[in-house]
Amino acid sequence: MVSFKEIIAFMLRLGRWFCLLAPLALLVGSFCALFLWMLEWVTHYRFTHPNILYGLPLAGVAVALSYYWWGGRAGGGNNLILDEINKPGEGVPLRMAPLVFIGTVVSHLFGASVGREGTAVQMGGSLASNFARLFHLDERETRILLMAGMASGLGAVYGTPITGAVFGLEVVTLGALDYSALLPVAVTSIIADWTCHQWGIHHASYIVNFKGFAAQGQPAFHVDALLWVKVALAAVAFGFASKAFSEGVYRLAPLIKKLCPHTWLQPAIGGVATIALVWLLGTRDYLGLGVTAPELGGASIVNFFGSTHYAWSWLLKLLFTVIALATGYKGGEVTPLFFIGAGLGNALAPFLGVPGDLLAGVGMVAVFGGAVNAPLACTIMGVELFGGTNIVYYATGCFIAYLCSGHTGIYLSQRVGIPKI
Amino acid sequence: MVSFKEIIAFMLRLGRWFCLLAPLALLVGSFCALFLWMLEWVTHYRFTHPNILYGLPLAGVAVALSYYWWGGRAGGGNNLILDEINKPGEGVPLRMAPLVFIGTVVSHLFGASVGREGTAVQMGGSLASNFARLFHLDERETRILLMAGMASGLGAVYGTPITGAVFGLEVVTLGALDYSALLPVAVTSIIADWTCHQWGIHHASYIVNFKGFAAQGQPAFHVDALLWVKVALAAVAFGFASKAFSEGVYRLAPLIKKLCPHTWLQPAIGGVATIALVWLLGTRDYLGLGVTAPELGGASIVNFFGSTHYAWSWLLKLLFTVIALATGYKGGEVTPLFFIGAGLGNALAPFLGVPGDLLAGVGMVAVFGGAVNAPLACTIMGVELFGGTNIVYYATGCFIAYLCSGHTGIYLSQRVGIPKI
Repeated sequence: MVSFKEIIAFMLRLGRWFCLLAPLALLVGSFCALFLWMLEWVTHYRFTHPNILYGLPLAGVAVALSYYWWGGRAGGGNNLILDEINKPGEGVPLRMAPLVFIGTVVSHLFGASVGREGTAVQMGGSLASNFARLFHLDERETRILLMAGMASGLGAVYGTPITGAVFGLEVVTLGALDYSALLPVAVTSIIADWTCHQWGIHHASYIVNFKGFAAQGQPAFHVDALLWVKVALAAVAFGFASKAFSEGVYRLAPLIKKLCPHTWLQPAIGGVATIALVWLLGTRDYLGLGVTAPELGGASIVNFFGSTHYAWSWLLKLLFTVIALATGYKGGEVTPLFFIGAGLGNALAPFLGVPGDLLAGVGMVAVFGGAVNAPLACTIMGVELFGGTNIVYYATGCFIAYLCSGHTGIYLSQRVGIPKI
Repeated sequence: MVSFKEIIAFMLRLGRWFCLLAPLALLVGSFCALFLWMLEWVTHYRFTHPNILYGLPLAGVAVALSYYWWGGRAGGGNNLILDEINKPGEGVPLRMAPLVFIGTVVSHLFGASVGREGTAVQMGGSLASNFARLFHLDERETRILLMAGMASGLGAVYGTPITGAVFGLEVVTLGALDYSALLPVAVTSIIADWTCHQWGIHHASYIVNFKGFAAQGQPAFHVDALLWVKVALAAVAFGFASKAFSEGVYRLAPLIKKLCPHTWLQPAIGGVATIALVWLLGTRDYLGLGVTAPELGGASIVNFFGSTHYAWSWLLKLLFTVIALATGYKGGEVTPLFFIGAGLGNALAPFLGVPGDLLAGVGMVAVFGGAVNAPLACTIMGVELFGGTNIVYYATGCFIAYLCSGHTGIYLSQRVGIPKI
């Protein structure tokens, strides 16, 4: 039996955790709100002032120089946070938060093809690490707080709190999931997301109208066998796209380094290459986040859910993003991965005879799931972004893409806990 | 780089797995369909012939004698399957499948308050183990097949394939999740569920009309802070209900054994006690599955989602079920756990000022999640049964109940991988 004393001790421990996590969540959620608001603003500015693109090489160098002069270990980014979770060391420097915040906003203002989750995760991780230091937490508590910081960053920036929580647990180790941080991570992510909404932030909505093949009058979802097989085939392509992305960044970075050993100068190469690609292709659809396009009907994540067919947009976005990330632009990978996945789903749908909105949705979460090795978090992301009806297809897509994407992944500091096969 | 030879080897391995899993899934799905159809039939028969209850003690003894004479190791039930997954030994005997099938149908015909998932899981596990023996699989492959068998049984019997898959991975070890079986388990569960539907089986539907507090015109879900805190408080109660249930069975069984050392005679005690309780309370609502009640407006899972308030139904069902399980009736725990959870949610809702359908839904999955220590599977079950809109509340309920339910759980063979706190 549990004694009264034990219950009191348990309640005190819960209360103490809550007092640590709630302020962290409020901070992370507020910074995410500010970040999303600024991203919206700079993206709008870039759409109305397209020539700002020509400043991209210089802007990239300026950001890289700020890291070179003031960054210290902050340049480690997401991998530093994963390292600190796997093996707590000196902690994550506080300066990481403002540096990555400003660096990402500048990258997006000038049109680099990067994401935003890296910034949110790093802001969360940096704040969490400094909270842990401030309150003299021990190693185990520091780990939990770091996971909560990461999770809440991701949860708030995409408006998907449960995805954030599962991601925080799942991403640390490939092939295993540790439940000891379950509740703290979920509470932080939910409060951070709530905070972000309280600041009036709305997230883009992606509409999947397809609603399974429920029998007449039946509310429950029934899987359609042929459609399921088609989604599984597409998922193999999604997994290979994840792999191409991870390996692309992984292989291009050392080539760039050979070409130009000065880290701070590398963004100039990426910036010039981006400008050249824009000239060559005659479109600015592949700059920035890509959630919406500068012109009506352009390639964008939202439009991939519509009825227009975009055959090669996913490959072009992959090219733009690999160049931007390998040459050191800040922001992250996830929104471009969404673009690549939704775009590939849109491209494959007519050939496979699958509803385009469904395959765009599956691709969006599956390519992300394959690249970060977080199949459960990404299945739940499908539910949080598009609703629960098609969960069988989201799960199938994410699990197969996870299996096909290899052991590299975009986070090199992820430990391989249990091999995939 | 991956060579062509490696890809061929990978495809062959995938193909081989598919040839193993698809027939297993078809079998498990078909048996689950037959099982659900027979349960429906016997429940209807019992509703129209209420006096059959007086045969319960004798029926229980007959089932127990069949196990005593022919059961061998099959009497180990779910725990034997978990043991075989954790440490493959002599395998699960094939006779387990028909014994548990007939035993459960008989228990339900005469009105024992038991579930049905135990039967499905044991049929799946028994078939999987014999498949593994037939095809001379090695230890690692046998484990994966056993998990797939369990998962597909649960997935098909409740019409929740992804829940089944995550449950299969999650239930083996408390506090950790191993991804190496992810895809095989999911594929088997999805095909088994599909098969069950192909036989024309429909699952009961529980309607949660409450749809978050989305802002006007916004499709995305926004968490309501006060409602969230209320759900979290209720979840503590759900966790304690899980604990009371697990400990009740765990503590009553040795007392029964002391009272009557003959295992085959113990169901007579349970049967007589059940009849006495029905006399005393003047209601038959707590017999059998409890998905629907014999009379309109009686206490039942479906009715807990409506507007009638049932203050103590959850406690009475707990009493009936602990007695039935501790005295050896077959079937399982999950549907009674659903009843207890949904009933407790219904009972608490007006006091907390929470919509009754929402709290019934949260309670239903959270009490189950706490008792089997599978918080992620149960969160996903919320999505698969009620839709994705309220996932934050389902996750909060399941995570907190998991934390509060202690380390016992209903499956004593579950390994404690990582302690909860």
